[in-house]
Amino acid sequence: MSYKILEGKKGIIFGALDDQSIAWKTAKTVHDAGGKFILTNAPVALRMGAIKELAEEVGTKVFPADATNLEDLNSLVDFAQTELGGNLDFVLHSIGMSVNVRKGKHYTDLNHDWMQKGWDVSAVSFHKLMQCLYKKDAMNTWGSIVALSYIAAQRTFPNYNDMADNKAYLESIARSFGYFFGKDKKVRVNTISQSPTLTTAGKGVKGLDGFLKYAEEMSPLGNATAEECADYIISLFSDYTRKVTLQNLFHDGGFSNTGVSQDIIDRLMGDS
Amino acid sequence: MSYKILEGKKGIIFGALDDQSIAWKTAKTVHDAGGKFILTNAPVALRMGAIKELAEEVGTKVFPADATNLEDLNSLVDFAQTELGGNLDFVLHSIGMSVNVRKGKHYTDLNHDWMQKGWDVSAVSFHKLMQCLYKKDAMNTWGSIVALSYIAAQRTFPNYNDMADNKAYLESIARSFGYFFGKDKKVRVNTISQSPTLTTAGKGVKGLDGFLKYAEEMSPLGNATAEECADYIISLFSDYTRKVTLQNLFHDGGFSNTGVSQDIIDRLMGDS
Amino acid sequence: MSYKILEGKKGIIFGALDDQSIAWKTAKTVHDAGGKFILTNAPVALRMGAIKELAEEVGTKVFPADATNLEDLNSLVDFAQTELGGNLDFVLHSIGMSVNVRKGKHYTDLNHDWMQKGWDVSAVSFHKLMQCLYKKDAMNTWGSIVALSYIAAQRTFPNYNDMADNKAYLESIARSFGYFFGKDKKVRVNTISQSPTLTTAGKGVKGLDGFLKYAEEMSPLGNATAEECADYIISLFSDYTRKVTLQNLFHDGGFSNTGVSQDIIDRLMGDS
Amino acid sequence: MSYKILEGKKGIIFGALDDQSIAWKTAKTVHDAGGKFILTNAPVALRMGAIKELAEEVGTKVFPADATNLEDLNSLVDFAQTELGGNLDFVLHSIGMSVNVRKGKHYTDLNHDWMQKGWDVSAVSFHKLMQCLYKKDAMNTWGSIVALSYIAAQRTFPNYNDMADNKAYLESIARSFGYFFGKDKKVRVNTISQSPTLTTAGKGVKGLDGFLKYAEEMSPLGNATAEECADYIISLFSDYTRKVTLQNLFHDGGFSNTGVSQDIIDRLMGDS
Repeated sequence: MSYKILEGKKGIIFGALDDQSIAWKTAKTVHDAGGKFILTNAPVALRMGAIKELAEEVGTKVFPADATNLEDLNSLVDFAQTELGGNLDFVLHSIGMSVNVRKGKHYTDLNHDWMQKGWDVSAVSFHKLMQCLYKKDAMNTWGSIVALSYIAAQRTFPNYNDMADNKAYLESIARSFGYFFGKDKKVRVNTISQSPTLTTAGKGVKGLDGFLKYAEEMSPLGNATAEECADYIISLFSDYTRKVTLQNLFHDGGFSNTGVSQDIIDRLMGDS
Repeated sequence: MSYKILEGKKGIIFGALDDQSIAWKTAKTVHDAGGKFILTNAPVALRMGAIKELAEEVGTKVFPADATNLEDLNSLVDFAQTELGGNLDFVLHSIGMSVNVRKGKHYTDLNHDWMQKGWDVSAVSFHKLMQCLYKKDAMNTWGSIVALSYIAAQRTFPNYNDMADNKAYLESIARSFGYFFGKDKKVRVNTISQSPTLTTAGKGVKGLDGFLKYAEEMSPLGNATAEECADYIISLFSDYTRKVTLQNLFHDGGFSNTGVSQDIIDRLMGDS
Repeated sequence: MSYKILEGKKGIIFGALDDQSIAWKTAKTVHDAGGKFILTNAPVALRMGAIKELAEEVGTKVFPADATNLEDLNSLVDFAQTELGGNLDFVLHSIGMSVNVRKGKHYTDLNHDWMQKGWDVSAVSFHKLMQCLYKKDAMNTWGSIVALSYIAAQRTFPNYNDMADNKAYLESIARSFGYFFGKDKKVRVNTISQSPTLTTAGKGVKGLDGFLKYAEEMSPLGNATAEECADYIISLFSDYTRKVTLQNLFHDGGFSNTGVSQDIIDRLMGDS
Repeated sequence: MSYKILEGKKGIIFGALDDQSIAWKTAKTVHDAGGKFILTNAPVALRMGAIKELAEEVGTKVFPADATNLEDLNSLVDFAQTELGGNLDFVLHSIGMSVNVRKGKHYTDLNHDWMQKGWDVSAVSFHKLMQCLYKKDAMNTWGSIVALSYIAAQRTFPNYNDMADNKAYLESIARSFGYFFGKDKKVRVNTISQSPTLTTAGKGVKGLDGFLKYAEEMSPLGNATAEECADYIISLFSDYTRKVTLQNLFHDGGFSNTGVSQDIIDRLMGDS
């Protein structure tokens, strides 16, 4: 699609790491839709990733910022406002990380310092970001803030570990801050609960292949891809969705409301 | 358990068909807990079932009533009040039937007259029953009304057919009528969303065996049995739960909040 | 907005009655976005309404059809396919009516024949419509079907009466049929749960003014208007939302996830 | 009620501070129902509270433990097992605190160190407690673990501040850990979402009086009291509810499923 539905809109995109990232796909899609933006990621991620290449591709700049650091966030927003020439219309928060997942700690044997680190990066960063935007009055009226979440916030998945709890906290922040952003600034705040997606971050989740297969067979439309997620995100940044706020929106091919599919039942009965 | 937690309480139990029925198990459990009650079922079901045997076992009477017929319901409530000596403290609605399921019509090819019949029996009967109880002022303060439901009201299961829609309507009636029963009479109204259970009614659902197996492996505590459901029902009839109302309560070994279990993933990957 | 995001797409819009209708606003918005469509409503509504005027305004035709009548629905779909030259990409179901509401019957004293009539018109019509589309294979791959709902399907509102139960049934149909439409045809099915809206239909709900005020003060972004709903609908018809299905989507300024607003608390405490 | 439904059962009760506490009421109710238990609270709370008086009243002991400290939790569980003579059947987690609430920081201007402190005390403590119980294998089969929550975990309430996010995290922990406790130990884990209650902790929430009044008028059965909550808790500790797990159970007089009450609408329209 090449409709310029974000023409004139300005924003910040967090979390583009490499060409598998949902944030990367979103950056390209926003660009195609006429939006301008600054890319950002943690300094350490920037060293690993290919984000500069992407920045060149879409003619924009990268500003390194640790999303758990209020000073970094303040500098980032200042930079974006200066660079883009005014207040912001959209922000994408696509950040998540669990040290316990990375280090293979089981949920019944967590390291609680690591739990705190993952919580700070994956969830509190969203509060810090919005607090910074709110206090600076950096969002335009009818702006849109979106964070990426996952259905483990509602239902338990054995290997998703403390990321489930982080996503529950993240979605709660969206509601809690969305209230004040709505009442005071006419800005909407939502989370998208996306199908499991084979990003570099997703690869860290043990048993993801088994779960991808399960989700694919469960979902009436199959799993949603990163590209499709980017399309959905720009509909939420656009003016078509101005009164949607405080929501957690499932973008998952119908997985969330499917109790079981015939395919899964057939598999179970076939091998019995 | 032999605690007399329903001592002095009186009620009506709908839907005991044979010794597989949840209503049958509930009748025995209520009896053991000290409650008195009248049993009822449709005249046609009475001819098929063994309900009189149960009535003798628990020392009570059976009053035939078509739950879709207001006159029958009025007579039943009159009979129960006379027989039990006063107003009622508890009512169990355990009624469900889909002609489309019985006749093997696919959800994409329903007979809409049959759809209406199933809706009337499975869902509207609950409204008619409560309207009768409400207008007669037949419930005691802090009484408890319970209907049995199923998670297909929230998520789709390919073979549950129009029963899913009937259960959604039933749960809505619980909320809608529960408001007025609460405000005006201090009576609570809830539904229990029970694990799939191999009752005579359940046997009519095509592919139930596959689904029972799936649910058993998904649920952290395994499927809830009919006996366990009876135990749960009497906790909702008792005075321990006086402020629980307008709820749909999952009694399912944790199925409803489990995204997927490791057992299911292992099965899927094992046969790939 | 004048982006042609529905260019090349064809559909049917049910329920445009007069210039207050959400369906009317949707017709105009779809037209502006480049979509082609047939308008339809019940013959009796056509006599009352101004729908022909609208049809002329957007250069299309009106086909009278009783949405509870399978023959009428079949003729309508045949007509639309012929007139528009091929299969359909979008359908809007915006139909709802309760005889009990119209005649002022209280929820605790319903006429059950009227209850059935309202259920048939407001909910079963959606199943009949989809069954017709499915059996004729009349939808294009990645098509989108939307029905309008209301939060009374989840929570009780004292004057919404049996429309609450009808909306719960409607939303269940969306999930049940959405499964098969997804798996078999790659078509998505969703409901939008819209703010209370002062349409001609809405005016029939007793005490709507009080509720509109309450909802306005509760919702962080205020109530969503009919025009805004039309914008949201076309985002769901567009290719930006291809993997969203089986969902009930709140378009309500945040009402659904607001426990209470400060404005409401202030009002309550101010007059105490 | 004086049924001994917890006869032979042993457990730990966290959070009894003074005679307003839900945990205090629960201790007395568990005692009356025949259960044995150890009381615990943070050393600092013990100095403030009247918990020793309660312990004498119910003939048990108090073991001071900081619920954020794994060593303290381990010592507590050891003590309880020794003192009570074996493994545990029930645990109540009734702990919550927000430094930001106490110090009057607005949600849009939080101190993030305080946010972490409140999260650790209110939510992570529940994970630490269960991890300790799980690793020690300290729960009997069919045991029951309950934590107290609040509906702010689902919907936003302007003054509930970061406690909303903490409760969302707490409820997620119940699901995440409940899966493993269910599969591996046949132990159930649930949260109760209780009406706003005027406890010493509750008094810290700004504007609680306004909200109590609102909730009272919204709820069909009125707000649930602390005593009623204690009754509900023991039903969840008892054998009547063995297959209920991973649930968040609303004990709120119907508040959670009431969209609005007539009383509230009348108030709004009366003062307009």
